[in-house]
Amino acid sequence: MKKVGILMGSDSDLPIVKKAIDTLDALAIPYEVHVYSAHRTPLEAAQFAKSARENGFGAIIAAAGMAAHLAGAVAAQTTLPVIGIPCASAYLDGLDALLSTVQMPGGIPVATVAINGAVNAALLCAQIFAVEDSDLAKKLDDKRASDAKKVLEKDNAVAQQFNKN
Amino acid sequence: MKKVGILMGSDSDLPIVKKAIDTLDALAIPYEVHVYSAHRTPLEAAQFAKSARENGFGAIIAAAGMAAHLAGAVAAQTTLPVIGIPCASAYLDGLDALLSTVQMPGGIPVATVAINGAVNAALLCAQIFAVEDSDLAKKLDDKRASDAKKVLEKDNAVAQQFNKN
Amino acid sequence: MKKVGILMGSDSDLPIVKKAIDTLDALAIPYEVHVYSAHRTPLEAAQFAKSARENGFGAIIAAAGMAAHLAGAVAAQTTLPVIGIPCASAYLDGLDALLSTVQMPGGIPVATVAINGAVNAALLCAQIFAVEDSDLAKKLDDKRASDAKKVLEKDNAVAQQFNKN
Amino acid sequence: MKKVGILMGSDSDLPIVKKAIDTLDALAIPYEVHVYSAHRTPLEAAQFAKSARENGFGAIIAAAGMAAHLAGAVAAQTTLPVIGIPCASAYLDGLDALLSTVQMPGGIPVATVAINGAVNAALLCAQIFAVEDSDLAKKLDDKRASDAKKVLEKDNAVAQQFNKN
Amino acid sequence: MKKVGILMGSDSDLPIVKKAIDTLDALAIPYEVHVYSAHRTPLEAAQFAKSARENGFGAIIAAAGMAAHLAGAVAAQTTLPVIGIPCASAYLDGLDALLSTVQMPGGIPVATVAINGAVNAALLCAQIFAVEDSDLAKKLDDKRASDAKKVLEKDNAVAQQFNKN
Amino acid sequence: MKKVGILMGSDSDLPIVKKAIDTLDALAIPYEVHVYSAHRTPLEAAQFAKSARENGFGAIIAAAGMAAHLAGAVAAQTTLPVIGIPCASAYLDGLDALLSTVQMPGGIPVATVAINGAVNAALLCAQIFAVEDSDLAKKLDDKRASDAKKVLEKDNAVAQQFNKN
Amino acid sequence: MKKVGILMGSDSDLPIVKKAIDTLDALAIPYEVHVYSAHRTPLEAAQFAKSARENGFGAIIAAAGMAAHLAGAVAAQTTLPVIGIPCASAYLDGLDALLSTVQMPGGIPVATVAINGAVNAALLCAQIFAVEDSDLAKKLDDKRASDAKKVLEKDNAVAQQFNKN
Amino acid sequence: MKKVGILMGSDSDLPIVKKAIDTLDALAIPYEVHVYSAHRTPLEAAQFAKSARENGFGAIIAAAGMAAHLAGAVAAQTTLPVIGIPCASAYLDGLDALLSTVQMPGGIPVATVAINGAVNAALLCAQIFAVEDSDLAKKLDDKRASDAKKVLEKDNAVAQQFNKN
Repeated sequence: MKKVGILMGSDSDLPIVKKAIDTLDALAIPYEVHVYSAHRTPLEAAQFAKSARENGFGAIIAAAGMAAHLAGAVAAQTTLPVIGIPCASAYLDGLDALLSTVQMPGGIPVATVAINGAVNAALLCAQIFAVEDSDLAKKLDDKRASDAKKVLEKDNAVAQQFNKN
Repeated sequence: MKKVGILMGSDSDLPIVKKAIDTLDALAIPYEVHVYSAHRTPLEAAQFAKSARENGFGAIIAAAGMAAHLAGAVAAQTTLPVIGIPCASAYLDGLDALLSTVQMPGGIPVATVAINGAVNAALLCAQIFAVEDSDLAKKLDDKRASDAKKVLEKDNAVAQQFNKN
Repeated sequence: MKKVGILMGSDSDLPIVKKAIDTLDALAIPYEVHVYSAHRTPLEAAQFAKSARENGFGAIIAAAGMAAHLAGAVAAQTTLPVIGIPCASAYLDGLDALLSTVQMPGGIPVATVAINGAVNAALLCAQIFAVEDSDLAKKLDDKRASDAKKVLEKDNAVAQQFNKN
Repeated sequence: MKKVGILMGSDSDLPIVKKAIDTLDALAIPYEVHVYSAHRTPLEAAQFAKSARENGFGAIIAAAGMAAHLAGAVAAQTTLPVIGIPCASAYLDGLDALLSTVQMPGGIPVATVAINGAVNAALLCAQIFAVEDSDLAKKLDDKRASDAKKVLEKDNAVAQQFNKN
Repeated sequence: MKKVGILMGSDSDLPIVKKAIDTLDALAIPYEVHVYSAHRTPLEAAQFAKSARENGFGAIIAAAGMAAHLAGAVAAQTTLPVIGIPCASAYLDGLDALLSTVQMPGGIPVATVAINGAVNAALLCAQIFAVEDSDLAKKLDDKRASDAKKVLEKDNAVAQQFNKN
Repeated sequence: MKKVGILMGSDSDLPIVKKAIDTLDALAIPYEVHVYSAHRTPLEAAQFAKSARENGFGAIIAAAGMAAHLAGAVAAQTTLPVIGIPCASAYLDGLDALLSTVQMPGGIPVATVAINGAVNAALLCAQIFAVEDSDLAKKLDDKRASDAKKVLEKDNAVAQQFNKN
Repeated sequence: MKKVGILMGSDSDLPIVKKAIDTLDALAIPYEVHVYSAHRTPLEAAQFAKSARENGFGAIIAAAGMAAHLAGAVAAQTTLPVIGIPCASAYLDGLDALLSTVQMPGGIPVATVAINGAVNAALLCAQIFAVEDSDLAKKLDDKRASDAKKVLEKDNAVAQQFNKN
Repeated sequence: MKKVGILMGSDSDLPIVKKAIDTLDALAIPYEVHVYSAHRTPLEAAQFAKSARENGFGAIIAAAGMAAHLAGAVAAQTTLPVIGIPCASAYLDGLDALLSTVQMPGGIPVATVAINGAVNAALLCAQIFAVEDSDLAKKLDDKRASDAKKVLEKDNAVAQQFNKN
């Protein structure tokens, strides 16, 4: 199975990125994690991206905050799908990172998820891999069913506690 | 080759969506186009999504404006990758559609592109298909090289016209 | 008397929704509470909405955060009045939920209240029921008078403490 | 049948409000239209609202722009359901009117629709009246079915023109 | 000397308003403080405003949060200068109150100060009274000089501690 | 009678400022108009402000766009009331000018009106002058009555054209 | 004299960038103009930046829109001063480009000017060069004096036309 | 070597400004620190700026919050490069200060860094001085290399802990 490359612009993003790691673990999808900054280590970020396909990667997650260029910088160097996680930093609640990640010009797409949306970034990689992997698709369908069941159990608990009709 | 499903919430989104169609045409990727509203025809949108994988689709693009629920509603019904295009409408410049599309809760990812970013939505589908299709990956790399060449030709023209050094 | 359906997208919204419950209790309006996610349990949400009128509901409150689709998804399945409560989540202070809830396209209205405005969502249901129920209208008028009296008591206390004229 | 009161803060809002009028006409719901400004004619606005229930009104629509106080000022004087239409003016794309209309304090709800969302304001009144009027509910269901049919006809046209699969 | 009327929409605004009170105290300007809500006690707010001039008031401060209508509602009833303080509430950092207060339509001005800017609201009243009161103008000039002196003392302390040149 | 000083940061603001001029003309309030930029002619702006009181001015209007410092720069030099008009420029719809004008620190108030709100800036000056001028207060009350009458005439026309009850 | 490097992300930014060119021409500062996209030609942009100091450049201007990474990508490769011009594109009025340009992480500064602020970008380069070039400093002072004179001439014209005192 | 002037609008900005001081210390660049408010001590701020070049300064950093005029006021008085630090205050997360600082009109540039971006403000001064100072340029290049090394060490640690491939 192909690997997911998980890049973060700073190791301060690790608590967010950890949720993507856990999600991939639960789905038994292999990955490599790196701290590469688009601004402090642009060469390493570019080299990783440029050789990612031949190194067995099938998708890349890039998490960064503020003027979040990492996902775009990576996307500029590969035609693998790149998923951008805009990270909230001390000010502006991640709006700066969201716009810096999602508003890419035509030609170089970044698949952007919610602010700090690391779980969905990992699931998106899984869904991409599952296009040609029916076992993984089955796993994802099962997870959906299990998530739905949990919601309905909570529904049951809440309904029992509160309904007055 | 798998098909791309292209959904739009209203046929007024067609001029935007047309750019995704043209991009897929240029890459010889098959597709189906539908006008399904998350609010006016929720059943049809859900049915399309639910049976998309078995009907030969490999990714779904959903374009909608305002409280843009289409991509999320589709993503709720399939584990295929869903790409959301937030469309700008008369007010707020697409900020409402962007937030309605990208801020998905954990479990149900939508890969969001820029406001009216239909070209990149199509390219993202192509990049997803190219994970397991080296011919398509080659086409995408060639397109990147050709895009870069065009930039450098413009660079040349501009430099000749303006440089004073 | 008709019932109010109270839906929340996640049980984490319960502390907000509880204020709507308390408000309905104080007015002796019956209700049912459910946890139905527009994305994780779209079928249950739709089924509830579709059969709500025949099941004795007169209005539905839907509370959700982020890309808050619940109110819109419910409104798409019923012509009962649907009141949307945009819930603030960790980032953006509820602006994402507000725009996702209020910016509905023509044809499918959602009556939107303030961010986390659960008390007003319940009062709106009561005001809707009171259109044809003069006893309830009387109760609402009494509550208004009582609220006004409380303000004027506070006015009195503040005026006594501070006025220098 | 009860009437809808349609208030606008300025006759410059008439082109927007006209869509609410047309929607009520199509549903054969009676109405009265007034130009009452919350700031220039506060007394008339308040008097209209205060006596609306006894004058046979069942709901009030209030359309205003900028620091849009009309809906709130009306809601302060009646326990009838008040629907607020935030109108876009020359600057800020209606964001000022939206926040001025929707962010009401607890106790005095305003049911807010989208920026310039006059059609939905009228439909919301109809849905409120239809809670106790099954003929009107039937009309609204029929309109929904007819709207859905139009979407599917467009879907058909678009699919025929564009699909390549 | 004329009095300042200080109105707040809720006694929860008192900690903010207290700074205006203290500022007026320091300038020996008389005032009356009231809790009048534009929505819960519209009549009392209007009556206060309407009779303010004849009751010896020379300016009115109105502090309110969210869909902050108080200043506008007061301004609609008097041609005395009305100063609006937009108060920050739990969400949106006061942006809703700022736009609801400052974006008044032509004809009914509200002199808006910064979010929670109660000190400046009081100073503005003082500056208005000082147009025809040279003693008060002198006091205000003295306060400015004293404020400037404090800044320069801090400048001195900081410069001594840090300068390296 | 005291004069109003009307400053604009650039003569491109003249079409906006003209409405303030016309409003003062209608009320027979004397004024002086100047183009003084806070950034290009800071000395002239400061000198005007510093000597304004002794030169017979009773209030100053300052209109500027973008990083609109003019009102604040003037307010820093005088204890006369300073009214700020945030002017919309090519981008951001005046939000930059609004925040630059209204968010003044404690000690130096600027009475801010709506984006491009020149009429209200002039009326605010008139209301300030009218605190001690009962003839002017009467004129302002008359203008209010006349404005209200115009609204009610429009109400009449609209009601006659549209009401169906 | 050192040269200014002027980069734009797309030749569609040329009308904006042209104002920087004209400003440098007027000050007789040499420059080179290039179209280098951070995403389409990342290598060329990086190489230009990396060798800029040794190639005789003293500052670099980078103009880009949307997720405007160009200035940051250039700044990552050089310790020359980099001036970022956020360009307004079809949606969001340049707010995306502003935040993408200015919100740089610690270590890699970008000197950001106003949205589409090309004249100031060029002047900033001139001011940087003038730190060690008193002739250029003199030119800049003269330009300031000339700009001020133009404002005062307009002031004179406006004052003559409008003053009524 | 030329000095950096570091101005802050209030000593409450000192914790932010301290990071600029530390950065300059680490690079052995001399500086002077002052508390000068654009509004409370406009004269001192202007005088500092006007005489800065002849007093041996080569760049000025100005840090201020809210309607942050300090950088613009300083820039109006000197043709030295002025770097603006928009400081976040209690509300709006620094967006007001950012727009007040960056949106300068043509003719008077302010080089704006990120919200609270004091380290980059200092680095920008260093980069400006390094245009003509190859020793300092070397220091800055070394710092970049050292920063990059730290990122790669973290990358190593993270990769060792997490990679599963």
